[in-house]
Amino acid sequence: MKETIFVLAPDSFKESMTAKEVCIAMEKGLRKIYPAAGYIHVPMADGGEGTVQSLVDASGGTIHHKEVSGPLGQTVTATYGILGDGTTAVIEMASASGIHLVTKQTRNPLCTTTYGTGELIRACLDQGIRKIIIGIGGSATNDGGTGMAEALGAKFLDAQGHALSRGGGALGHLARIDVSKLDERLQEVQFIVACDVTNPLCGEHGASQVFGPQKGATPEMVERLDANLSHYADVVKQQLHKDVRDIPGAGAAGGLGAGLLIFTQAVLRKGIEIVIEYSGLRDKLAEADVVFTGEGGIDFQTKFGKTPYGVAQAAKEAGKPVIAIAGFIGEGIDTLYAEGIDAVFGIVPGASDLEKLLKEGPDNVERTTENIARVLKLGRIT
Amino acid sequence: MKETIFVLAPDSFKESMTAKEVCIAMEKGLRKIYPAAGYIHVPMADGGEGTVQSLVDASGGTIHHKEVSGPLGQTVTATYGILGDGTTAVIEMASASGIHLVTKQTRNPLCTTTYGTGELIRACLDQGIRKIIIGIGGSATNDGGTGMAEALGAKFLDAQGHALSRGGGALGHLARIDVSKLDERLQEVQFIVACDVTNPLCGEHGASQVFGPQKGATPEMVERLDANLSHYADVVKQQLHKDVRDIPGAGAAGGLGAGLLIFTQAVLRKGIEIVIEYSGLRDKLAEADVVFTGEGGIDFQTKFGKTPYGVAQAAKEAGKPVIAIAGFIGEGIDTLYAEGIDAVFGIVPGASDLEKLLKEGPDNVERTTENIARVLKLGRIT
Repeated sequence: MKETIFVLAPDSFKESMTAKEVCIAMEKGLRKIYPAAGYIHVPMADGGEGTVQSLVDASGGTIHHKEVSGPLGQTVTATYGILGDGTTAVIEMASASGIHLVTKQTRNPLCTTTYGTGELIRACLDQGIRKIIIGIGGSATNDGGTGMAEALGAKFLDAQGHALSRGGGALGHLARIDVSKLDERLQEVQFIVACDVTNPLCGEHGASQVFGPQKGATPEMVERLDANLSHYADVVKQQLHKDVRDIPGAGAAGGLGAGLLIFTQAVLRKGIEIVIEYSGLRDKLAEADVVFTGEGGIDFQTKFGKTPYGVAQAAKEAGKPVIAIAGFIGEGIDTLYAEGIDAVFGIVPGASDLEKLLKEGPDNVERTTENIARVLKLGRIT
Repeated sequence: MKETIFVLAPDSFKESMTAKEVCIAMEKGLRKIYPAAGYIHVPMADGGEGTVQSLVDASGGTIHHKEVSGPLGQTVTATYGILGDGTTAVIEMASASGIHLVTKQTRNPLCTTTYGTGELIRACLDQGIRKIIIGIGGSATNDGGTGMAEALGAKFLDAQGHALSRGGGALGHLARIDVSKLDERLQEVQFIVACDVTNPLCGEHGASQVFGPQKGATPEMVERLDANLSHYADVVKQQLHKDVRDIPGAGAAGGLGAGLLIFTQAVLRKGIEIVIEYSGLRDKLAEADVVFTGEGGIDFQTKFGKTPYGVAQAAKEAGKPVIAIAGFIGEGIDTLYAEGIDAVFGIVPGASDLEKLLKEGPDNVERTTENIARVLKLGRIT
């Protein structure tokens, strides 16, 4: 008889377990009931926080650290990954330029810069990387990706030929973009941008108006930032002959979406689709008898591109059943059953505060998957 | 094809749902996946709180109320049940004489009396009842059941022939027990006492020493109460020719166990066994494909006579699988799997405070059983 194969493809449980740790706990529970089964770990992510760790874990890659300029110019130690193939890198922009790197008091999207993200990209180029997967969620910036481009050799000059100060606040004075010194290796490298939003660069649904306030922009700052990005788009169109203003996703990460489209060979894709591809999930699903997924929280938002949804969609194509677990089950999970998630279980053992639960995550995953396995073992009740 | 039958035999989820309400929520969840299945509700209890409600619900009986004397003589409205057969009553002594009827300030086991419990019994006799199931957990009393007996016509007299004041504190003066006016109907009525403890009436493991302190007895009071119960046992042996001192369970409920053995035709049995018998659970299990049970909390203590354990043991004899759910899963559930509980699931959706969870109980039961049904439907994974 063929050995049973369980594919374990959870996201991380934020602040509790990495996706790989969830895989390990899932296997521990299932193995008590299915000791002879095969267990394929596919630590997942959706392009947001944890994507570097999960793709490195899924591919047997390596984690690297680099000191770069943070969003306000301070030195930060950022992290990126190189996948098991040795030629693909994975970056989370937030690691260098994220909102968690500024305090509520120092948030100022007039000044925050993506320069550190550019430095991370340069580090990858220096290692001979041919392909860069970049997740752009969680940014502190509103600079249209100009900081990133500057770190890679582009120059943003005013009418007097002086370099602009960094940050979206100065872009109103942009007169000329000098790309003569832009790193030539960018021509040879493919950028795959994990981007789940469809916001254009400017206007009512643009970067500044939609995301500016959560980065600390006052209404006056929003207005200025939006006008500046609009001016930037005009200059880009005129001088670089690229029209990015209305491309869906150009407004992601304070316009870093646009910046990547302008200065690199970039395609924007949904984060979960990228992770499914680079984790090799589909090949592994083909072998599965049952698929387990999960995330810290599962609710109606899960359908909007979260990992359990992506895994379920892929598993559904392959005709495989999916069981999801979560630390928190919110409203609207009923809508997930039609999308390929066959069942959802909470892992929480009782009334408890979050801190304790975050600590006990692995035990609770193990207990829950063991008991799901016990029901699977009971047999089909028609 | 034979219709699938689910037997739903949970205990109540204390402060959240009666056992019957749990049954209803379980069915709601399961029915989404098994709309054509048969659902047999067997609301359970273990002889403790909820036993009256569950046996009334399981048998299609009726709930009755009666004003009686509380543990400190105050008027309380106590509840008892008459089962669907019309001739069996079920009483929880705590309803008339329970610890919840005194405050921390007024707790005084020298004075508290089981008189109200006797009044409840009399009410049953007046209705022509032939059999009384009585749960004796949660007492506020330490009177050896003398209050109960007094309400049924017995007299407890001092050397001068004066009636003793009620409560265990006066029993040191007991000189004579006059049973000439004891209700004659007690000869014709069978008492089935739900009693899970094996404490003798007196001594180190007796009623006063083990349970006195939690009823408010100081060390000096414990000593006096214990000596008084010992004197009571001596008088009973000498005058009524019954030796109850060392019968396991005589010390239950401050000696009400002994009192029932002395003054009524009583047998002491484990609570869960009584409920299994009078709920007709075994007959219903014979029809079951899958059995669901559950309780507010499940942990290592579940094995000591709690409902999920009793249901699982009975189901195991019948060769039926049992799935348990709980609001709180504690330590040691691993030991339950060998006892007939095939799987245990928590119903809690995430970090939450108890008050909110108690309110959302039915929703959480429904969601959990639906998802268990979804896994049952997936089929046997070997």
